[in-house]
Amino acid sequence: MKKGILITAVCLCSQFVFSQNADSVVIKKIVDETMTNSTAYENLRKLCKQIGPRLSGSQQFAKAVTLVASMMKNIGADTVYLQQCMVPHWVRGEKERGQIILTDGKKYDLKLCALGNSVGTGAKGVTANVVEVNSMAQLDKLGTSVKGKIVFFNFPMNQTYIKTFRAYGESGVSRNRGPAVAGKYGAVGAIVRSLAINLNDYPHTGATGYNDSFPKIPAVAISTNDAEYFSRELKKGNVSKAYFRTTSQMLPDAVGYNVIGEIKGSQFPEQIITVGGHLDSWDLAEGANDDGSGVVQSMDVLRTLKALGIKPKRTIRAVAFANEENGGRGGKKYLDEAKAKNEKQIFALESDEGGFTPRGFSLDMSETQSNKIISWKNLFYPYGASDIIAGGSGSDVGPLKDIGTALAGFTPDSQRYFDIHHAATDVFENVSERELKLGAANMTALIWLVSEYGL
Amino acid sequence: MKKGILITAVCLCSQFVFSQNADSVVIKKIVDETMTNSTAYENLRKLCKQIGPRLSGSQQFAKAVTLVASMMKNIGADTVYLQQCMVPHWVRGEKERGQIILTDGKKYDLKLCALGNSVGTGAKGVTANVVEVNSMAQLDKLGTSVKGKIVFFNFPMNQTYIKTFRAYGESGVSRNRGPAVAGKYGAVGAIVRSLAINLNDYPHTGATGYNDSFPKIPAVAISTNDAEYFSRELKKGNVSKAYFRTTSQMLPDAVGYNVIGEIKGSQFPEQIITVGGHLDSWDLAEGANDDGSGVVQSMDVLRTLKALGIKPKRTIRAVAFANEENGGRGGKKYLDEAKAKNEKQIFALESDEGGFTPRGFSLDMSETQSNKIISWKNLFYPYGASDIIAGGSGSDVGPLKDIGTALAGFTPDSQRYFDIHHAATDVFENVSERELKLGAANMTALIWLVSEYGL
Repeated sequence: MKKGILITAVCLCSQFVFSQNADSVVIKKIVDETMTNSTAYENLRKLCKQIGPRLSGSQQFAKAVTLVASMMKNIGADTVYLQQCMVPHWVRGEKERGQIILTDGKKYDLKLCALGNSVGTGAKGVTANVVEVNSMAQLDKLGTSVKGKIVFFNFPMNQTYIKTFRAYGESGVSRNRGPAVAGKYGAVGAIVRSLAINLNDYPHTGATGYNDSFPKIPAVAISTNDAEYFSRELKKGNVSKAYFRTTSQMLPDAVGYNVIGEIKGSQFPEQIITVGGHLDSWDLAEGANDDGSGVVQSMDVLRTLKALGIKPKRTIRAVAFANEENGGRGGKKYLDEAKAKNEKQIFALESDEGGFTPRGFSLDMSETQSNKIISWKNLFYPYGASDIIAGGSGSDVGPLKDIGTALAGFTPDSQRYFDIHHAATDVFENVSERELKLGAANMTALIWLVSEYGL
Repeated sequence: MKKGILITAVCLCSQFVFSQNADSVVIKKIVDETMTNSTAYENLRKLCKQIGPRLSGSQQFAKAVTLVASMMKNIGADTVYLQQCMVPHWVRGEKERGQIILTDGKKYDLKLCALGNSVGTGAKGVTANVVEVNSMAQLDKLGTSVKGKIVFFNFPMNQTYIKTFRAYGESGVSRNRGPAVAGKYGAVGAIVRSLAINLNDYPHTGATGYNDSFPKIPAVAISTNDAEYFSRELKKGNVSKAYFRTTSQMLPDAVGYNVIGEIKGSQFPEQIITVGGHLDSWDLAEGANDDGSGVVQSMDVLRTLKALGIKPKRTIRAVAFANEENGGRGGKKYLDEAKAKNEKQIFALESDEGGFTPRGFSLDMSETQSNKIISWKNLFYPYGASDIIAGGSGSDVGPLKDIGTALAGFTPDSQRYFDIHHAATDVFENVSERELKLGAANMTALIWLVSEYGL
């Protein structure tokens, strides 16, 4: 009996090794094809240079929809279609300005930008005394003593976190919730240190979230270099007041679209695998790494399978989501449609951490499903993406959790992302062709494995 | 008896786990200190922006020696000293020029540069018919039929090699040996496709190696975009001749220096651990990734240990080698001195693959020694450098093999290296602060482990 188990185990094991070998041959083909013929880099160039910034609700976004839909056709999707949804329509208005007014009467021009979704200051701007806080607890402690003041949120990103998204999560509360809480305590404005991990001269925008129960106050991000200067001068007692002027405003919702390209599954067409990134970007950036890269990589999954003549067993959809940055409406719409059509969404992979060199995947699914993907780990090792662990997925595919979809996120190396995230420096030139393609190759390999074996 | 073995095994295992836990605490401190306070990035800025290109034999190189010696002192090395050696002194001369002369009489200006160590064409330049070759075998087959012609070596780097150094090795023969072999067959000039893995407009220089038995012919590198154009026009039969003019020459050997900073070991001072990169760079580049990054990372090993108050058991030396690019004389000198002083060089680590995000280390040592380092693998996992495998080390530490030193190379991600290698684009701006520091942190961790436990 024991011998029987042993023999069975050896057989299963050999079969496993055999199937992994056969899979590794296909994956090598996928990688070779991608590194040689991928159009991801050229598509990204077009998206960044022909369109550029494409905030939800903007004319640029509408142009990007047309461009990406035509790219989806070119790469050979069976079907290309749009999902219409309403999206927030926030506009920056005139070029913002702001200054630190020093006690000696001198003025220091701040490199700043309004935070996404923020209200404007009115034509006169706001001028007020400043109080610096380094944590939300500190603000809560100050409470209504900040009334009539500008709160300066100086939450540097923690340099010691090797996975920089952890630092973004921790310091990000300053931008996400800071202005709302400052408003609650009666502050008249919020100045937020940019969520940049290095010291640079660019303000990094991003959405702030107001609370409808509190007054909504205007809010700007300043560059990390300016934040360092500001904090230093405050400590020295050299700051009299700060001033800034923004004319941003939230307009009524506009129309947006998810752009979808599909290859129908040959054996289980009803089982849908989604791979996507978001098409919208901040208005200050070309959105090359955030998230043009995710969009072109997702399209490349379809292109590579087509080019190799691989007919996936399950249906594969590449989705360029409508609105991640300041509303998450694209992902919500995709879920709503999936529910309405009672779709069997078995797996969804998002690429929204930049087009950098691959490290692995992060899994948000059952243990059994995770273990299946983790058993494929060695297949990804030669291509740099074998760090496959439990974690989050992405904002756009996230809503699918509601219908039990197994979710995953592509995890590129995160060291450079927050140097350029949401800033004018997130441009095509800051994407490496090989890194982008290698990410696409690994994504294609994972999507192919799931299409072949299910979860 | 069996039980006894089991208990011993469990005890050894627990001890192993315990010691790894204790080590991981120290390594976490090393990484935190590096990511927070490293001076590597600022030192690299100075090396690139205050000095810039620093080819062996140049005045710039001499200035770099002074700068790096003062940096070594600043970071707290016990002893800082120079090792003098003679180095090749090749000079580029006047700005090179070259053209493709088309059959319709039009001329196409080539973006080119003389190859390092190459002879000049003389004032008139060379003008000749062209034959394109795609392999050395093809050239050998053509043999003396290339007499009087210019040989165009068009060896594109293989895009499917994920470790790009493999592609460099394969295609590199065109630059290293191509001109010598073309000279042997009577060619009058060599035009070599740059060893760049992407398509760009910059010529990438690098050393060529003549053979004293054959005529030495002038040799240039052209940009990869130009190589594509050239090959296309040749295939169409549109090329009449090619022309280029270089005034490069090899002068008599000049004086160079290895710059060395040392922390004396507290328990085994006679056992020496070397960590280094090379100080010389090509004259066209700031040498930021090749190899300013290796130099500043090596110095940072000493700085971090000092800052943490760690007294290494074994002697640690940071070495900025004198001459890697066109002679390898720095490493040779270091070996000669080690031999003359009968030094016990137990381990040497080189960083000469760029300041990119860490992947691991490559080991060139006995299996027992390798296994010891591989047993530390998990300690590097949180910091991205756990890919520890057998392989090469580096050109500068390589000669130490002669005295049995265990050798290793730091292995950063290689996707971006050959976009900028040996070209005018190898500048400070193309180094990421966090990637550079994270590399230094992992190097420090490995050096510390070896200093603690020996090999």
